Amino acid sequence: MTALPETMTAITIVGKGGPDVLQPATVPVPLVGRGQVLIKVEAAGVNRPDVMQRLGLYPAPKGHSEIPGLEVSGTVVLLGPEAPRFSAGGKVMALVNGGGYAEYCVADEGSCLPVPDGVSMIEAAAIPEGFFTVWHNVFERGGLKSGDWFLIHGGTSGIGVAAIQLAAAMGAKVIATAGSAEKCAVCRELGAVRAVDYKTEDFAEAVKAETGGRGVDVILDMVGGDYVERNIRSLADDGRLVNIGFQSGSKVTIDMIRIMLKRLTVTGSTLRIRSAEVKAAIARAVEEKVVPLIAAKRVKVVIDATFPLREAAAAHARMDAAHVGKIVLTV
Amino acid sequence: MTALPETMTAITIVGKGGPDVLQPATVPVPLVGRGQVLIKVEAAGVNRPDVMQRLGLYPAPKGHSEIPGLEVSGTVVLLGPEAPRFSAGGKVMALVNGGGYAEYCVADEGSCLPVPDGVSMIEAAAIPEGFFTVWHNVFERGGLKSGDWFLIHGGTSGIGVAAIQLAAAMGAKVIATAGSAEKCAVCRELGAVRAVDYKTEDFAEAVKAETGGRGVDVILDMVGGDYVERNIRSLADDGRLVNIGFQSGSKVTIDMIRIMLKRLTVTGSTLRIRSAEVKAAIARAVEEKVVPLIAAKRVKVVIDATFPLREAAAAHARMDAAHVGKIVLTV
Repeated sequence: MTALPETMTAITIVGKGGPDVLQPATVPVPLVGRGQVLIKVEAAGVNRPDVMQRLGLYPAPKGHSEIPGLEVSGTVVLLGPEAPRFSAGGKVMALVNGGGYAEYCVADEGSCLPVPDGVSMIEAAAIPEGFFTVWHNVFERGGLKSGDWFLIHGGTSGIGVAAIQLAAAMGAKVIATAGSAEKCAVCRELGAVRAVDYKTEDFAEAVKAETGGRGVDVILDMVGGDYVERNIRSLADDGRLVNIGFQSGSKVTIDMIRIMLKRLTVTGSTLRIRSAEVKAAIARAVEEKVVPLIAAKRVKVVIDATFPLREAAAAHARMDAAHVGKIVLTV
Repeated sequence: MTALPETMTAITIVGKGGPDVLQPATVPVPLVGRGQVLIKVEAAGVNRPDVMQRLGLYPAPKGHSEIPGLEVSGTVVLLGPEAPRFSAGGKVMALVNGGGYAEYCVADEGSCLPVPDGVSMIEAAAIPEGFFTVWHNVFERGGLKSGDWFLIHGGTSGIGVAAIQLAAAMGAKVIATAGSAEKCAVCRELGAVRAVDYKTEDFAEAVKAETGGRGVDVILDMVGGDYVERNIRSLADDGRLVNIGFQSGSKVTIDMIRIMLKRLTVTGSTLRIRSAEVKAAIARAVEEKVVPLIAAKRVKVVIDATFPLREAAAAHARMDAAHVGKIVLTV
């Protein structure tokens, strides 16, 4: 293996605002710490929190890299102390604490997974953030089981395409919302039994009709705003609402009597601020439950487009426009 | 055993409104069905839902007796088909689907528990509704564990006195709210490490101070209204809010971002509408986990006052006024 360079190309956020604030720069290769590995990045996934960070709405938590990017694939090139799971030269995909938009990135060893045979490095870079989020929130937190009804909003987002397929693969009946007839068709192809065009239909009415008035067991939502009250109305007895974002706002008026009478659970979580131990536990569950489905092609990694690392701004412009599935940067 | 009479004295609700709508009447002794027993009532607990029912705000669910009263103690005098757990002559306490304010009352066998030695029939009548509710909501639903912080509102209500003691007995640190210095003293005597007079203190500030800014793990609330937002603020990371009532209203404005960032669980339930199977499962858990604590005098049944059955109106007048613990009717 050749010696590591001291500097690398990475995308930095210069100011805050539109995609143009994302600019390539030469920065030091990051130091690898205890329980960490250094990854030579081949591809990096683009996610909604990166956009929020670019807009100045979601600063990197203290101690995390200021460079955007929460997931990468690549080759392990250096092992920190107490990081025995991987060897130098191993191909991994990893959830990272920022720093993904770069030639080199450190990852907690526990947040790395081996890339399975038959999965490309571009696909691998698009797995951790979406599938960790869906696994933890839909299955661990929401308790979705085979036979349950599941409602997912933003069905063609990176989270959405993962959630539809994973829920369907686990035997749930999936209803997805999306913003056009074309996107609804994609949701159905991925396994949704019903797709709702939110621009022309009220999803609460659609859920009621599709479930024969029963409602759904689990909802994964990142919209918030006036969806919250309609989500609560759309839940069956003992149903669970899991919010992982509030794109339409988080201050809402609801009638809590429905929570009591239907014994609902309203909850939510956000992945980035969790401890390394919690992320490692999720990673192991994903490795055991989700990766085999991806390796067997029962669940696809849906790639919308790829862009070279230096064109991160163009990738973000596409995030802000219509797209289906994941956008990935390649190094 | 003497032959059963065909009629009995019971309290009926004539119209709706103040305590005076509760009037004694002669009615048929109820018929015992499959899986049920007929109990010759010795005492009947008075509960908040009885008051709501009297006011016309909480009609008896379909198929339930129109006679108020959700818990009784007494002697089993008749067994329906497929009711093998008890024998005629056995002393029981039971959660019932209405009909408790009467000389005879039917109960699902699964909702009956034997009265332990050393517990009076008056105490026994005051156990099921409060302890079933607290056990299910605080421990099964809220997941309270030893070492957790627990906040209970209405600390001197029937629910409150049960919750303070049970949570303290299970090793939780209890903060209780109540409406006077005297009631706060009772909360502390029952095991609260801190009692908050809600008329003079903001409980959210008190929780913050008492827990060093951490917040509590579980809250049991029956107030709702502006308590909801303050409850959410008072929860620690991964905390659980369980609402079993909304005396101040259920339509509330909250900021859901706290639910996501702190990974809270907001839930609730109401006991009366649950199936016989669910009530039986709760009854068995109470029999195993709670009754031994009562039998050992580690948890007291706090009786505020007793009234003869015919004076149910006076008992309700006391429910509407200041009282501490349970009010019981005696037959």
